[in-house]
Amino acid sequence: MTTWVPDVSPESPFSLANIPFGIITTEHDSAPRAAVAIGSHVVDLKALSGSKEFAEAATTIPGLGDVFSQPTLNAFAALGRPVHQQLRALLQDILSSDTKHPAVLRDNAELRQRALVPQAKVKMHLPMDIRDYTDFYAGYHHAYNVGVLFRGPANALQPNYTHLPVGYHGRASSIVVSGTPIRRPWGQILLDPAAEPKQPTTAPCRRLDIELELGCFIAKPNALGEPVKVEKAEEFIFGYVLLNDWSARDIQAWEYVPLGPFNGKNFGSTVSPWVVLADALEPFRTKGFENKTQLQDYLRETKEETALDIELQIDLTTVEGDTTTIGVTSAKHLMWSFPQMIAHHTLGGCPLNTGDMLGSGTISGTKPSERGSLLEMSEGGKKDINLAGMHVRRFLKDGDTITLRGVCGKEGARVGFGDCTGTIFPAIQR
Amino acid sequence: MTTWVPDVSPESPFSLANIPFGIITTEHDSAPRAAVAIGSHVVDLKALSGSKEFAEAATTIPGLGDVFSQPTLNAFAALGRPVHQQLRALLQDILSSDTKHPAVLRDNAELRQRALVPQAKVKMHLPMDIRDYTDFYAGYHHAYNVGVLFRGPANALQPNYTHLPVGYHGRASSIVVSGTPIRRPWGQILLDPAAEPKQPTTAPCRRLDIELELGCFIAKPNALGEPVKVEKAEEFIFGYVLLNDWSARDIQAWEYVPLGPFNGKNFGSTVSPWVVLADALEPFRTKGFENKTQLQDYLRETKEETALDIELQIDLTTVEGDTTTIGVTSAKHLMWSFPQMIAHHTLGGCPLNTGDMLGSGTISGTKPSERGSLLEMSEGGKKDINLAGMHVRRFLKDGDTITLRGVCGKEGARVGFGDCTGTIFPAIQR
Repeated sequence: MTTWVPDVSPESPFSLANIPFGIITTEHDSAPRAAVAIGSHVVDLKALSGSKEFAEAATTIPGLGDVFSQPTLNAFAALGRPVHQQLRALLQDILSSDTKHPAVLRDNAELRQRALVPQAKVKMHLPMDIRDYTDFYAGYHHAYNVGVLFRGPANALQPNYTHLPVGYHGRASSIVVSGTPIRRPWGQILLDPAAEPKQPTTAPCRRLDIELELGCFIAKPNALGEPVKVEKAEEFIFGYVLLNDWSARDIQAWEYVPLGPFNGKNFGSTVSPWVVLADALEPFRTKGFENKTQLQDYLRETKEETALDIELQIDLTTVEGDTTTIGVTSAKHLMWSFPQMIAHHTLGGCPLNTGDMLGSGTISGTKPSERGSLLEMSEGGKKDINLAGMHVRRFLKDGDTITLRGVCGKEGARVGFGDCTGTIFPAIQR
Repeated sequence: MTTWVPDVSPESPFSLANIPFGIITTEHDSAPRAAVAIGSHVVDLKALSGSKEFAEAATTIPGLGDVFSQPTLNAFAALGRPVHQQLRALLQDILSSDTKHPAVLRDNAELRQRALVPQAKVKMHLPMDIRDYTDFYAGYHHAYNVGVLFRGPANALQPNYTHLPVGYHGRASSIVVSGTPIRRPWGQILLDPAAEPKQPTTAPCRRLDIELELGCFIAKPNALGEPVKVEKAEEFIFGYVLLNDWSARDIQAWEYVPLGPFNGKNFGSTVSPWVVLADALEPFRTKGFENKTQLQDYLRETKEETALDIELQIDLTTVEGDTTTIGVTSAKHLMWSFPQMIAHHTLGGCPLNTGDMLGSGTISGTKPSERGSLLEMSEGGKKDINLAGMHVRRFLKDGDTITLRGVCGKEGARVGFGDCTGTIFPAIQR
C-alpha cells in the first residue's frame, strides 16, 4: 500500500497504515476542525467532507453529518468503532496510489489545493473535549520501582495491586495539547521531611518530574449504574495518545495522605495532538506483563494479547539545545489492559462519557534504561542522570523540554503518535 | 420585606431573602431553563426575561442575553458576582408586595399565568454543567472521628491536615440531582480484612454510607498557571448546594491505598437542585472551627467570619415509611473556608472553570448527635443506630431514603436549600 501524497518519509509515524485524527486551525481558517495526518501533510476533513465526490464515496458510512466541522473529535468518536473503521478504510483508499476513488482527491487539483495542507502550516489543538480524566497505575515496573523507593522491596506493592487496576480521578481542566508551556508550580513542600514537627514552606516545586503514559479516549458512554463487561470494553475505546502527566514530587509527597495526589498533579498534563485509532493499533497487540494472581471474573479476558507493543521514547532537551534520549521502553509493560481498566472503572456503575481520558500510569521496563520517570532514573533524586553536553539532572530545570515519542511497525508502514512535548517555564513571581 | 406571591409559608426555605436558582422543565415546555424558587412556586426566568416589562426593569444589568434559556446555569454564573447581586436584588423587588416594578409581574396577570408555576408542577434538573469536581476534607470533627476509627486518637489526623485543605479530584460524571435513585454498587471488597494473604471478593457493597457536605459552584475561571489569591476567591464563587457524597466504605477500604478513593466514590453524588447564591448566605457568616496552626501566607484571611452558619439535618426514611432525624449539625464546623480551598486548589496554577464543584468534605459537629456519616454514627460499623419504628442500621439498606436539609435565618426570612434526597436501589443482578 503506497500513497500518492508527496513527501511521506518511510520513517514518518503517519503512514497510510495509521490515519490518526486531530483538530487543526490554519492561517486561512481559524475555526478548529478535524483532520487526519499523512506523512508531512494533513487532510482537512471539513474541506474534504464538504465535497460532492467525498459524499458519494462515503454514502454507506452513517451519521457523519457535520462531525468534522466540530472543534473537537467528540462527535466523531461518539459514532462508534464500526464507523471509525469504515471511515479509516475509506481514507486509506482515497490516499492510496491505486485508489478506487481517484476523483475525490488524487485527481482533484482544486480540492487537493484546499484540503491537503503541509503540517508546518497547521496549528494543533486539544483533540477531545475531556470531561473526566482517570489516571491508572497499570505499569507494573514503575509501581514496583516507586514502591521500593518509598517502602523497600518487601512492601513495594500494596496488597490490592495485582487484584485490581488501581486508579484515581485526575484533573481534566489542566490537560493541554503538546507544545503548551508547563509553568513550574508553587506548592506546599517540606524542606526537611524528617524534621518534627513537620513544617511546610510555600515554594516553587524542586522535584519536577515527568510520567510517560498512554492516554485512552472513550468513544461512547455507559449509563449511570450500568457496568461495561470486559469483553465489550473494546467497543468503548476511540483511540490513544501519548500522555506526559507532569508531577511535582515534593508537593505530592506532603499532600497525598490520605486522599491521594492533588496539586502535585493538576498543574498540567500534556497529550500528543493526533489520536491514533484503536483500529490502527490492532496489528500491534501483544501479551502484557503477566499477572499471576487469580483474577476476579469481571477482569478476566479471553484474549491473550491485550497489551500494545508501542515503542516509547523520552528525550530531554536542555535550554542549551543538547538532546539526550533518557528512556526507551514499550507499552507492553502494562499489567492491566485498557478493557480491564474500563471494566473495573464501571463495576460500581460509574458513567464514562465520550471524550473521557484514561491514563495508563507510568510505563517503565525492567532495565535501568527503560524508566518512565526521573524519580526512578535518579533513584529517588539521589543519583545524577547524565545528559549530552556534560549536563546532569535529578529533576527538571527551567527551560528543559521533554519530548515523548511512540511508534509501532516497520519502515514505510509506521503507526505512531507524533511528538508529545512541553517546556518548563519558571515559576511565577509571587 | 413581604411578597405578593401566594402560599409562602414562614417556614419555607425559599423566602424573599433567598431567591435560589435552578433548572426546570414543565409539562408544557420540556426545554430545560432557569428559574428561581419563591415559597411553593417557581418563577420561570425564561418566560419572565422574555417580557418587555422585565427587559425595561433590567436594562442596567449587563450581559443577561439568553442566559435563562440555557439548559444549565453556567452562562448566568459566568456573568460574575456583581451581576448575580443586581439580578437577585431586582427579583426581590419584583416579588415584593411593595415592588417598584408592579407592571413586570405583580400586576401582569398574563405573564404571572405563564411565569409563576407551582413547584409541584416542575421537574428539577442538575443545575450546572459540572466539568471537574474536587472533594475537600475540611470538616475537622469528621476527619478526626474517622482518623480515630482507623488509626487511634494519637494519630487521628495526618500531619498535613491543619496546614492545607486536604482534597482530591472527584468524579464529575456521577453527580446527579436530588431524587435520582442510587444503585447499590458492586465492587471488590475484603470479606475478612484481617486474613492473610488478602483475598477480595466481587460483591454488592455492604457498607453503603452517606456524607453530609456543602457543594460550592465556581462562577468564573482562572487561567492555567494563574493562582487565585485568597482575598479574591469570593469573586469566584457562584453559590452553594447540599451534597450527599454517597460512599461505599468496604470498596473504598480495599482500593484507596496509595492513590485515594475511586470506585468507593464514583457511583453517585447527589446535589440539591436549587443553587443558593453566595450573596444570599452573606448574612450568615460566622467563625469556623479555629485552626491554631500558623498558616502559610497564601491561606491567611483577613476576615474572621469565613464560615457559614447553616443548620444541617439528615433524615433517614425506611422502606416502611418511618423517618428518623439521624444527625443535626452546622456548616460552621468546617475548618477551611471555601476561599481557602480555592486559593490552595489554584496555588500551583490549576485552572478552575465555570460550573466546577468543590465539596466541603463531610460535616460533623462535636456531639454524637452531630455526625455527618453513618461510619461515625455506628462507630465504624460496630454499633446500631436506632431508628423510629424499632429499626436499626449500621449502614444503608436497600429502599432507605436519605434526605439532607439545610437552612439559615428566622421564620419568614429563611434561606435554605430544599431537599437533597436519594433512595437506595438494590444492586443489579450479574
